[in-house]
Amino acid sequence: MAAYTLGELARLVGGHVIGDDCICIEGVATLANASPQQISFLANSRYQYQLSETRAAAVILSESELPQCRVAALVTANPYISYARIAALFVPTSAKQQGIHPAAFVSSDAVIHETAWVGPNCSIEAGVTVGANVRIGPGCFVGENSGVGADSLLVGNVSLCHGVHIGCRNTIHPGAVIGSDGFGFANVQGEWLKVPQLGGVVTGDDVEIGANTTIDRGALDDTVIEEGVKLDNQIQIAHNVHIGAHTAMAGCAGVSGSTRVGRRCAIAGGVGIAGHLEIADDVTITAMSLVLKSIREPGSVYSSGIPAEPNRPWNRRLVHFRRLDEMAARLKSVEHQLGTDINKQEN
Amino acid sequence: MAAYTLGELARLVGGHVIGDDCICIEGVATLANASPQQISFLANSRYQYQLSETRAAAVILSESELPQCRVAALVTANPYISYARIAALFVPTSAKQQGIHPAAFVSSDAVIHETAWVGPNCSIEAGVTVGANVRIGPGCFVGENSGVGADSLLVGNVSLCHGVHIGCRNTIHPGAVIGSDGFGFANVQGEWLKVPQLGGVVTGDDVEIGANTTIDRGALDDTVIEEGVKLDNQIQIAHNVHIGAHTAMAGCAGVSGSTRVGRRCAIAGGVGIAGHLEIADDVTITAMSLVLKSIREPGSVYSSGIPAEPNRPWNRRLVHFRRLDEMAARLKSVEHQLGTDINKQEN
Amino acid sequence: MAAYTLGELARLVGGHVIGDDCICIEGVATLANASPQQISFLANSRYQYQLSETRAAAVILSESELPQCRVAALVTANPYISYARIAALFVPTSAKQQGIHPAAFVSSDAVIHETAWVGPNCSIEAGVTVGANVRIGPGCFVGENSGVGADSLLVGNVSLCHGVHIGCRNTIHPGAVIGSDGFGFANVQGEWLKVPQLGGVVTGDDVEIGANTTIDRGALDDTVIEEGVKLDNQIQIAHNVHIGAHTAMAGCAGVSGSTRVGRRCAIAGGVGIAGHLEIADDVTITAMSLVLKSIREPGSVYSSGIPAEPNRPWNRRLVHFRRLDEMAARLKSVEHQLGTDINKQEN
Repeated sequence: MAAYTLGELARLVGGHVIGDDCICIEGVATLANASPQQISFLANSRYQYQLSETRAAAVILSESELPQCRVAALVTANPYISYARIAALFVPTSAKQQGIHPAAFVSSDAVIHETAWVGPNCSIEAGVTVGANVRIGPGCFVGENSGVGADSLLVGNVSLCHGVHIGCRNTIHPGAVIGSDGFGFANVQGEWLKVPQLGGVVTGDDVEIGANTTIDRGALDDTVIEEGVKLDNQIQIAHNVHIGAHTAMAGCAGVSGSTRVGRRCAIAGGVGIAGHLEIADDVTITAMSLVLKSIREPGSVYSSGIPAEPNRPWNRRLVHFRRLDEMAARLKSVEHQLGTDINKQEN
Repeated sequence: MAAYTLGELARLVGGHVIGDDCICIEGVATLANASPQQISFLANSRYQYQLSETRAAAVILSESELPQCRVAALVTANPYISYARIAALFVPTSAKQQGIHPAAFVSSDAVIHETAWVGPNCSIEAGVTVGANVRIGPGCFVGENSGVGADSLLVGNVSLCHGVHIGCRNTIHPGAVIGSDGFGFANVQGEWLKVPQLGGVVTGDDVEIGANTTIDRGALDDTVIEEGVKLDNQIQIAHNVHIGAHTAMAGCAGVSGSTRVGRRCAIAGGVGIAGHLEIADDVTITAMSLVLKSIREPGSVYSSGIPAEPNRPWNRRLVHFRRLDEMAARLKSVEHQLGTDINKQEN
Repeated sequence: MAAYTLGELARLVGGHVIGDDCICIEGVATLANASPQQISFLANSRYQYQLSETRAAAVILSESELPQCRVAALVTANPYISYARIAALFVPTSAKQQGIHPAAFVSSDAVIHETAWVGPNCSIEAGVTVGANVRIGPGCFVGENSGVGADSLLVGNVSLCHGVHIGCRNTIHPGAVIGSDGFGFANVQGEWLKVPQLGGVVTGDDVEIGANTTIDRGALDDTVIEEGVKLDNQIQIAHNVHIGAHTAMAGCAGVSGSTRVGRRCAIAGGVGIAGHLEIADDVTITAMSLVLKSIREPGSVYSSGIPAEPNRPWNRRLVHFRRLDEMAARLKSVEHQLGTDINKQEN
């Protein structure tokens, strides 16, 4: 098991210790559940009340939280980032595996780097290239002429269709499907003629793709996910979408065909973005919004989705909402009687 | 093929027969499609009109529906529950399989109970424990140090990542992913640093998890699904969520990180619940609602989501909705002229 | 590599050539990226500006776009349909595979047509029938007594549960799950009793089912997807739903139990349709609508979902929306003072 002194951890994250920097730390845990061998952190003031009662060996926190801390402290400018770096030391590591599991099928026309691992029940088709230190977990399928860049991880049961190019240091979670056909059909007298989907999918380096997320191949050009993009679970990315670098999208969001999302955007859960739009850089869109127009101003914040409310007042308001036409007409009539119809001046 | 007399079925469900209790029943079917060897049921008054024309041998119904029934009847207090119990007798059963299929891969460090079944193309990693009578269908992947409790069923192509603990009598449908990494990243100058996801997932007994539903592992503590919870298809449960016992969630719902949902809640399809909230016991939330605040009153009913309407009146109302600011100002001005500004009194 | 003269392509699609009909065409590409060996097309006036600068050998377009075209043209009544037909000539084809891959498991009680292909790591259970020219890609699971009609394609990692009947010429993308149990539970004193799901799933000919889409089996009768239906990714179809022929549904839509959707409907992304409804033929429903009532008029257009807007004006309107009750009361009071209460006449 990994173990570090508190002083070693402070040096790693550029912080300083208040208390005994020789304390031995063997793991990370929440304030509520930490044992005296573990380090915890306070990054959300919501949990400050737990600080005075934690049994942790030490707590990672910011200067301002020090007064409430009764155990050793590791003080840093950004406790959450420091926690992330320290927690990475304690990720359990399996024995490193290399080679091709005997229960995997790998085409004789695929090129697998000697340091890569292909797990049981994988199917690797002809023309595939798998880079150094790649780990392909159980049950993955990698279609013809696809490639997986160095140090990437396909956790298990991942589907990469043909002609998909994954960058380096990608992590792809189970059930993700990359390179399925885009939804392209031409209507011929009431029936649907399939439009061949001839493009591929390209992801940049350091991309993470969540469980059961789907990314369709392009119709002609490629669908592109730039470097550093983080996609949560159950996201749908349609054909020819382009997601800019370091954008993060939360679960169940969907982007329709040919839309370009900018860099460093934050797209919340359940958001739907229509097709053929442009979303500028640094845009934030709140949960379950439906975006029907391009958002051209960088850094803007968009929202929609009416927060849930108790049933009865909501229903009463809904009745009035359905009568808004009538209310507007009645207001106009009242104004007319009073001789104050501002519409005359404004419209 | 299973066959029972109507009298036997009545005893099983605690009901009584009107008609010949020696009638032989060989299956269940809808009122519209039942043959004279099958029993049907009436649990939804919407289908009452089919009662007089059914060819079923008998119908499970409540006392009040008897007058319309022209065939034998099995009268019970709750026809739907009685139907569920009777239908269970007629589920087709495959020959019970035990052991490990020769086309499965099972680590020599896994412990598989002798009565369990591991199907073809499964991958069972080191440290896994599989209990008595568990059936793991084709193509499943069970990661290191996970466990599956007695009598559970993984239908096929299910992914359990490492450190996932499934209770007894769980049913997990194809494509479900349990224990994928939570969506945890710290922003470091515009780029995302992965926060290790070190917790696991624990499910209680009698849990059902639908097709392509995803449940992320906790960041530090576990994500918890208590006993008797029923999750439909394509649901997303984020890290550190806690779902209380006997709660049911319909398809495409999503719960964000660290939210606690109470016991016996009913969450309808497409509902989104934000992170770090508390939902009390016995709460009902209607379809496609977005919940942004904690719901603390047990038994309350929440709704949102504007029902779809024909395009033209909706668009007209939307225009007015967008002018609500203006309408409010105009109303105030009218009131002012009339000297009746209730805002003066109320606000 | 396939190659055709422009004249050959024109004859294929019933169009005529303006320019040299002997030009050799070796592929298709977008206007922006086409090389002088490729044909492009103009089907969306949004891209007209690219017409004058394309390097394509020729462009498929309509008569009215001819004046802007500076290269050879293939003129047709519907350029998108013509493009789809021509693009189909250039789909890369793998060497046609037949037979059963040695790394597949096929029950001795399954019947696989001699021209069909079963890929590595597939599991085909007892009683399954696989028709002529069917291709079942890597990692698929086909449960007991299911069938796959001639010329269908299961791309890879597809799950067909038991008793599922797929028509001819279906395409099913990775991660799709057909025939999982419907979400049927009876509430017994606060706990859930499973209602056996005894029906199956039947799809007609020429159906396409997207990646990670789920279609539940019927409770008693079958869930039915009629011929020519096109389902995009991540769609949820509940038990006993009936989707009429040639209906298209976009990504992330969901249909609740026992609802019947008509023929040739267009259901946009993220739409939710409640259970036990009837949707007429040729109905259009726009993105993220929630449909709570039957839509009985054929050809009608329904919408909901409030388009996203910048955060501040939206929040301001929301405040007014929450006071609609109060506004209505104040308007009534104003009208009363003026003696013009139209409610007296109307309600």
